[in-house]
Amino acid sequence: MTDAQELGITESKEYNTGEWYAEVVKKAGLANYGPEGMSGFIVTRPRGYALWERLQGELDARFKDTGVQNAYFPLFIPESYLEREKDIVEGFDPEVAWVTHGGHEELEERLAVRPTSESIIAPYMSQWVRSHRDLPLRVNQWASVVRWEATETKPFFRTKEFLWQEGHTAHATSEGAWEETMLRLDQYEDVYEDVLAIPVIRGQKPDHDKFPGADTTTTVEALMPDGKSVQGATSHHLGTSFAEAFDLTYADTDEEERVCNTTSWGFSWRSLGALIMTHSDDQGLVLPPTIAPEQVVVVPIWQEDTKDEVLEYAEDLAEDLESEGVRVELDARDERNPGFKFNEWELRGVPLRFEIGPNEVDDGEITAVHRPDGESVTLDRDDVTDEIHDQFDEVFAKLYAAAEENLSENVREAEGRNEILGTIGQHGGYVKAPWCGDEDCETEIKDQIAAEIVMVPFEGDDEKHHPAVLEGDCDCAVCGEAAETTAYFAKSY
Amino acid sequence: MTDAQELGITESKEYNTGEWYAEVVKKAGLANYGPEGMSGFIVTRPRGYALWERLQGELDARFKDTGVQNAYFPLFIPESYLEREKDIVEGFDPEVAWVTHGGHEELEERLAVRPTSESIIAPYMSQWVRSHRDLPLRVNQWASVVRWEATETKPFFRTKEFLWQEGHTAHATSEGAWEETMLRLDQYEDVYEDVLAIPVIRGQKPDHDKFPGADTTTTVEALMPDGKSVQGATSHHLGTSFAEAFDLTYADTDEEERVCNTTSWGFSWRSLGALIMTHSDDQGLVLPPTIAPEQVVVVPIWQEDTKDEVLEYAEDLAEDLESEGVRVELDARDERNPGFKFNEWELRGVPLRFEIGPNEVDDGEITAVHRPDGESVTLDRDDVTDEIHDQFDEVFAKLYAAAEENLSENVREAEGRNEILGTIGQHGGYVKAPWCGDEDCETEIKDQIAAEIVMVPFEGDDEKHHPAVLEGDCDCAVCGEAAETTAYFAKSY
Ligand SMILES: [Zn+2]
Ligand SMILES: [Zn+2]
Repeated sequence: MTDAQELGITESKEYNTGEWYAEVVKKAGLANYGPEGMSGFIVTRPRGYALWERLQGELDARFKDTGVQNAYFPLFIPESYLEREKDIVEGFDPEVAWVTHGGHEELEERLAVRPTSESIIAPYMSQWVRSHRDLPLRVNQWASVVRWEATETKPFFRTKEFLWQEGHTAHATSEGAWEETMLRLDQYEDVYEDVLAIPVIRGQKPDHDKFPGADTTTTVEALMPDGKSVQGATSHHLGTSFAEAFDLTYADTDEEERVCNTTSWGFSWRSLGALIMTHSDDQGLVLPPTIAPEQVVVVPIWQEDTKDEVLEYAEDLAEDLESEGVRVELDARDERNPGFKFNEWELRGVPLRFEIGPNEVDDGEITAVHRPDGESVTLDRDDVTDEIHDQFDEVFAKLYAAAEENLSENVREAEGRNEILGTIGQHGGYVKAPWCGDEDCETEIKDQIAAEIVMVPFEGDDEKHHPAVLEGDCDCAVCGEAAETTAYFAKSY
Repeated sequence: MTDAQELGITESKEYNTGEWYAEVVKKAGLANYGPEGMSGFIVTRPRGYALWERLQGELDARFKDTGVQNAYFPLFIPESYLEREKDIVEGFDPEVAWVTHGGHEELEERLAVRPTSESIIAPYMSQWVRSHRDLPLRVNQWASVVRWEATETKPFFRTKEFLWQEGHTAHATSEGAWEETMLRLDQYEDVYEDVLAIPVIRGQKPDHDKFPGADTTTTVEALMPDGKSVQGATSHHLGTSFAEAFDLTYADTDEEERVCNTTSWGFSWRSLGALIMTHSDDQGLVLPPTIAPEQVVVVPIWQEDTKDEVLEYAEDLAEDLESEGVRVELDARDERNPGFKFNEWELRGVPLRFEIGPNEVDDGEITAVHRPDGESVTLDRDDVTDEIHDQFDEVFAKLYAAAEENLSENVREAEGRNEILGTIGQHGGYVKAPWCGDEDCETEIKDQIAAEIVMVPFEGDDEKHHPAVLEGDCDCAVCGEAAETTAYFAKSY
């Protein structure tokens, strides 16, 4: 294997999406696979973790601005606590990692490594809520969770342990809980669209695919370039089912004891998977400036006789940008040539490259190159601390536009079973069709082509519904019974 | 039990320190004990977690300013990986939680829930380091760890699961690793002294109490008001022992393969225990303004006829402070009287209380009350956004001065075995004595009075050494053999 092959991406995004994705994750330095004996686990390297930290910061600030407090609950949940969820969820049988021994002793009761924390958070919330004055109560936890699913590992998309946040809230009324559910969905949408440059579509899960025990599960879905949907984040209106099971009640203004309505909502590092998959290309990672660890790399290009002036100009430029709050990297390595550096920073996803040679120095200019499409722009050195923000906006807009084009071109309509199968088979993407609401009609499609109903538009969100559904009195595309709503069929991650 | 008793602190810090501590943690809303079947675990409530988040932010910013990157490693460590530490550490027998089952399957190899991550981080660092250009490599992880020790639970001080950070670095030379070790110790000292208002003393652990495998373990120690020492944080120079065991080598400038020198350093939520224990009193929690979730509480005091003007003045004041970046809470609850509010905010540790009544409104003033000592100061309303910073500094200085007085008054000298025992027995605190370096001499003291050698001053840190040691040619206070250095004996947490 040559040096260039070892460093560069060799797989094709279009033809070998899975292998390409794994190669980008590894070669851009985002993650490694876990050690032997621990398939399904990954090591998140500093460049990968920096992306998660920034996302965490964006979301956490939005949460805190809207009344959420963070807390930390034990990593382990006694088996008997998990069992209480059986009161809520029939056939609940968690695939979890079990701790059976502490030191040299066998434990009296097995402890589950948290797969999600409802069953330990709810009992404490019920201790903390006494009166209507304690409501709404909003608690969020940033932590790792473990789900022992025996599937092939795909870093950030499918791992046995993953990082996420789970928010849990209690409210006096169902309306309060509904507002909360939608507020968090809005915030997830914001982060996808404004930070990750990924447009999403919002709606709810079909009843048979709701979070167990929930009244309503809402979702934001993102369409990947390979035509598959990613469930970006979910926000659940849990009604009173969890509150009843865990005795979460409050004394109302009239001193009557009432049951709370609760919500929960979660966002995981799967969002990083969507980020990598959406924007990156055969040269490697592509990141929007909003989240890139380095927003701009300055590469000086010199000959022996121009080295001093070029380096001084480049250093000065990097300093200016840094004091403007820009995340800038000056790559002044002696032992590497500019071409090598260009490739390396492209692989790593830096959104903007500034090339500085003797001509730029003489003319008081900067040659700026956009990572997504290689477009080259000449900037005035003196205006750079202003202009760079426009450049960032332009790069962001290019990424967003490409993703939005993919989404808008890949929502199609169908009115019959074969049309659903044919359209997904040919194009991937979403197919919206009238649906009776019966899971069997999903199963029939799933069995044929492994696509499922990933989303049902909200009532009143007319432009997302199938036109025939809006007109009323139409038939389910699969079984021909009366249609109740519109289903979005898609293959999914 | 009356309402006041249920809300207020009933135990005495001086006479019932342990019970008092537990009561403050609970009633100030910092933490609850874990569920039944999970003794040793706590639930960190939002007010407690907010303290940890702020500390994390302070330390993380210092780390990032000095070249540290965060990463995330798996929660589990295969038993065989932990076993490799046996090459380094004789008699290594970790008291950990063991995962034996994933879902319904028994695992082929048991997985330890991370008690510390050296054994999984080092092998990856060895993959990431190829040449001298990759050094120094600095990786930090914020995470929870589990140690299955069967001791009585004391929130933040002793829990089976705790939150911490562990930093791991690799360097070309031993000097580089030594600088790193001391840089992190400096940062820990900064955070204790400048953020937590707790003076610490620094030094190293005696050889028999080093981190297993380390060349040198350095520590910052804080003296609690009950005369016991808390190990505030440790920073280890690991020499080449871990690098050799995990094959962490680099190609030097001359192309020769050399073994790295490594360090590790950790800071846990035990620091929160020290914070609570140091400053709080029989009225409840006391926090320095640097870390308090609310730095100032505004309490309006009105009669029916003055309500509107008082409330307006108070609201206006709170807004001004908030736009100045002050963390301010306006307590305008109708259903509680001012006395109740005073007690509640004192219990919760808010450093500064602003009382606003009709007189303050008429005179354009503010009555400010310092939480640590109840001192009352009149401020000019128009200057408050400037003056509040001085007020914060004053409150901080009071807390620091009290802790420093406790420390400086409680370092005593001894030259004989009985003097050590008698002094610690009578006063607690630190007793510094000439020491031969033999663990047996510690054991003799430990057996008698449960005090140990918590710290040995660095060479050259003359003012910390016993005068006789500086003069040279003196005898161990315990056995009478030639003394090598000074030992600080103390009881410890
Ligand atoms: Zn149907
Ligand atoms: Zn001795």
